[in-house]
Amino acid sequence: MAVPDELAEHLRTVRLVDHHVHGWFTSPGDRPSFEAALNEGSPGPVPAWMSGFDLPVGLAVRRWCAPLLGLPALASADDYWAARSATPYDELVRTFVEAAGVEHWVVDNGLTPGLLDLPEPRSEVVRLEVLLEEVIGADDVPGAFRARLDDAAVRAVGTKTIAAYRTGLDIDWSRPTDAAVVAAALASGPRVVDPLLVAFVVHEAAARGLPLQVHTGLGDRDLDLRRADPLHLLPLLRTVEVPVLLLHCYPFHRQAGYLAQAFDHVSFDVGLAVNHLGARSVELVAESLELAPYAKQLYSSDAYGVPELHVLGSLLWRRAMGEVLGGWLARGDCGLDDAVRIVDLVAAGNARRVYGL
Amino acid sequence: MAVPDELAEHLRTVRLVDHHVHGWFTSPGDRPSFEAALNEGSPGPVPAWMSGFDLPVGLAVRRWCAPLLGLPALASADDYWAARSATPYDELVRTFVEAAGVEHWVVDNGLTPGLLDLPEPRSEVVRLEVLLEEVIGADDVPGAFRARLDDAAVRAVGTKTIAAYRTGLDIDWSRPTDAAVVAAALASGPRVVDPLLVAFVVHEAAARGLPLQVHTGLGDRDLDLRRADPLHLLPLLRTVEVPVLLLHCYPFHRQAGYLAQAFDHVSFDVGLAVNHLGARSVELVAESLELAPYAKQLYSSDAYGVPELHVLGSLLWRRAMGEVLGGWLARGDCGLDDAVRIVDLVAAGNARRVYGL
Amino acid sequence: MAVPDELAEHLRTVRLVDHHVHGWFTSPGDRPSFEAALNEGSPGPVPAWMSGFDLPVGLAVRRWCAPLLGLPALASADDYWAARSATPYDELVRTFVEAAGVEHWVVDNGLTPGLLDLPEPRSEVVRLEVLLEEVIGADDVPGAFRARLDDAAVRAVGTKTIAAYRTGLDIDWSRPTDAAVVAAALASGPRVVDPLLVAFVVHEAAARGLPLQVHTGLGDRDLDLRRADPLHLLPLLRTVEVPVLLLHCYPFHRQAGYLAQAFDHVSFDVGLAVNHLGARSVELVAESLELAPYAKQLYSSDAYGVPELHVLGSLLWRRAMGEVLGGWLARGDCGLDDAVRIVDLVAAGNARRVYGL
Repeated sequence: MAVPDELAEHLRTVRLVDHHVHGWFTSPGDRPSFEAALNEGSPGPVPAWMSGFDLPVGLAVRRWCAPLLGLPALASADDYWAARSATPYDELVRTFVEAAGVEHWVVDNGLTPGLLDLPEPRSEVVRLEVLLEEVIGADDVPGAFRARLDDAAVRAVGTKTIAAYRTGLDIDWSRPTDAAVVAAALASGPRVVDPLLVAFVVHEAAARGLPLQVHTGLGDRDLDLRRADPLHLLPLLRTVEVPVLLLHCYPFHRQAGYLAQAFDHVSFDVGLAVNHLGARSVELVAESLELAPYAKQLYSSDAYGVPELHVLGSLLWRRAMGEVLGGWLARGDCGLDDAVRIVDLVAAGNARRVYGL
Repeated sequence: MAVPDELAEHLRTVRLVDHHVHGWFTSPGDRPSFEAALNEGSPGPVPAWMSGFDLPVGLAVRRWCAPLLGLPALASADDYWAARSATPYDELVRTFVEAAGVEHWVVDNGLTPGLLDLPEPRSEVVRLEVLLEEVIGADDVPGAFRARLDDAAVRAVGTKTIAAYRTGLDIDWSRPTDAAVVAAALASGPRVVDPLLVAFVVHEAAARGLPLQVHTGLGDRDLDLRRADPLHLLPLLRTVEVPVLLLHCYPFHRQAGYLAQAFDHVSFDVGLAVNHLGARSVELVAESLELAPYAKQLYSSDAYGVPELHVLGSLLWRRAMGEVLGGWLARGDCGLDDAVRIVDLVAAGNARRVYGL
Repeated sequence: MAVPDELAEHLRTVRLVDHHVHGWFTSPGDRPSFEAALNEGSPGPVPAWMSGFDLPVGLAVRRWCAPLLGLPALASADDYWAARSATPYDELVRTFVEAAGVEHWVVDNGLTPGLLDLPEPRSEVVRLEVLLEEVIGADDVPGAFRARLDDAAVRAVGTKTIAAYRTGLDIDWSRPTDAAVVAAALASGPRVVDPLLVAFVVHEAAARGLPLQVHTGLGDRDLDLRRADPLHLLPLLRTVEVPVLLLHCYPFHRQAGYLAQAFDHVSFDVGLAVNHLGARSVELVAESLELAPYAKQLYSSDAYGVPELHVLGSLLWRRAMGEVLGGWLARGDCGLDDAVRIVDLVAAGNARRVYGL
């Protein structure tokens, strides 16, 4: 696909809002831990009979990140690791973060303590289940949670639920009474897995007017992917009025696009998948542009830990948008102005509007 | 994709049977109502921060319909609206309908009263739930419904169920007794949402031998898309013997293709989606040509209200078939005769056979 | 897509392990039975208003198999049938099997008696439900099954469950006690459809360390495709440690790729679909290369009965890998060495490792 020069240049330089992202590891790690970190789905070391570079995302690292370390594209895994190891970690991070071309990071800090902070400007998203777990043993759990949430709402631009991991998305999404929450909290262990408690925190968050991020689609093996289909959220979407951001979505990104068309307050991204599909991220982005209005899609990397992922998401998304919209241009399906407008909306404009950045 | 001249010419001129379509609005409407009508999924006005032209279908209207009003392709939204407003409505409708190249409309008249009739030749499909609702308060509901259906069967070429909207497709599809129907009718409000009543009307229709259309896949936000997967129809498909036409299907069109391969009496279309995916309708049509026999797929627009949709479906489908089959030709996967035959089957031949047109 | 010469040549000559395949019919059959055999989903004769050559796989037979019989590609159905009928059956079979370029067949012998044996070298996979049915009336069903399985394990390289056909994959996958198995066996007819018995045989097989094949995705109309989604296997995958091979998977191949990424012991193929999608097998293979490590995917034809299918799967897979990886090469997403390595892994390397061939 020959991407027209003006579109290509715009995609090289447009600044992104990465609306769902995590920090970096505090140290560069060794090669086994690096390869394992590329294997999103699996928690352990990569099996002896394969390599993290045998993953689509590993191949993409060799292709897109190697040149940032002064290597040719598709340098061997060994050469890549040698160059990476020879680069001071802060320089490595700086190189990758600058190449990402991100103007604003919207950070999910709730996952794991001990990650390094992303650079300014950044905003925070509060993970609701974590916030509840901080007060799960309190006398007045509803009140204690509300106080925490009120505090968090001052500094955060959004909230996030990982109901997909804790209960699945196919739960009773009706708003529980405080009495029911108290009873459920009493019965709960320190890790919240009660659907009623999940529904409670989500409705509390929605009542405060903050945009609500929802993990949907792929994740690690703790997930039951059947129960992470965003279509399960229908009863919730019919109830809440805050912007709802469906995260990741793959392989249910077409379902997410449907919801984003059907509900004015629903938007979605294909983050995480954009990195892990590597070469196939072009077709992923193409499919994400099927049904939803162009005002309903956001860019994210969902990068975590390995700074390669922060830049790779950006580079793969820029390439994909060029290929897809370049194809539309070539077929006469849009004009250059249309293509630039779609890029600008998904790159940053929609996120700025939704989060009020 | 360079589409060979003979195939391109055939696709420009082949006459279609639009086997699932609705009438036009009685008046051209204002711009907000026009933009809202493009937003299939959402019932209200388009939010202030976007435009109906920011939808994939809106972009496609600018590309494909603007030239029919004497504008360049991809004229701006404002220019499009100005030209549309300057055209008398009957001329606008005539222009679009002629450009659609449809030889026969198979019309679903049950949706909303007050739409303008499509031109002759046309045939009618009877919406079963609506027919039942006309007699839901009768003394002998089964008998009264049968009498209505017998009357309708004289003039109609098929029946249609919107079980997907009323109950979901994942219901008990066994045929109820008259006594059970009487009891359910007594308990029913004027809007039929009882699965037993839905199963009743479907089996009654099937017993009369008329082809049965079933809404599956995408629709507006009243729908629970999980429950609109055509795979839920399996128990019904194993029972009835009339032709069953799975409508729309997206994003479950691969599942529909599977059913069309597995059951001789099942066919499907990708109507509605062909319009609303705009530029991506090419890939939609490509995916619809994966598993089903070429004798098991039909063209439809599912256009409703806005006459742009009646022509857009036709133009997008023609373009998509050219791109897809042109690609097959270029790769040696079919010959020109094969491509023309596939076009003719899906364009009209299959519909003529199924409905006996 | 211009596939580079070296990659094209490698794909022409690389020898495959067909890790899931059946034998040939004992005779060439007549034309109606041949056409019916191409229609995987439907058990009966092809309806009068279509032909088996109107299936995507029928078109692919004309394109890929006709030249093996001395005809031009895309010879007419009549010419194809005439040439096939004029070829002695053993010569026909020999021609197709040699052209398949398979170095090792991993055969599922449990489906139907009376198929001709595939040539050496071949290995056997034991169908678990069939094995249980041989002893379902025994005094000590658990013991009798274990004795059979121990015998089979000596000669077989793997086991296979068709739970998808018998119970669906969405069953209680916990390991039952012997007492529960005895009770269930007493209540069972000769055809095993009890989920508890299915779970029993699967856990017994897994305990012996043999790779476990699981039918998922498309099949004939006896299947409830909703219940054949490999995601239903999650509880089983979390329990067993043997290699699990998800077969077919379409239209859930993306879900299968997710599982193959999340679980080190899970691999998958797109067999059966690779044949039945014909021209669209290119895109199927492309989608199968999205998320899973390249060490987690295997080639299979799932050919059955008609020897065309044994060669067609091979030719379509070779073509698809060339188009997909050729496209990646052209876009700079991999190097030639990478492409060759991916081909070698999926063609044979992964199967050799999993089955210890």
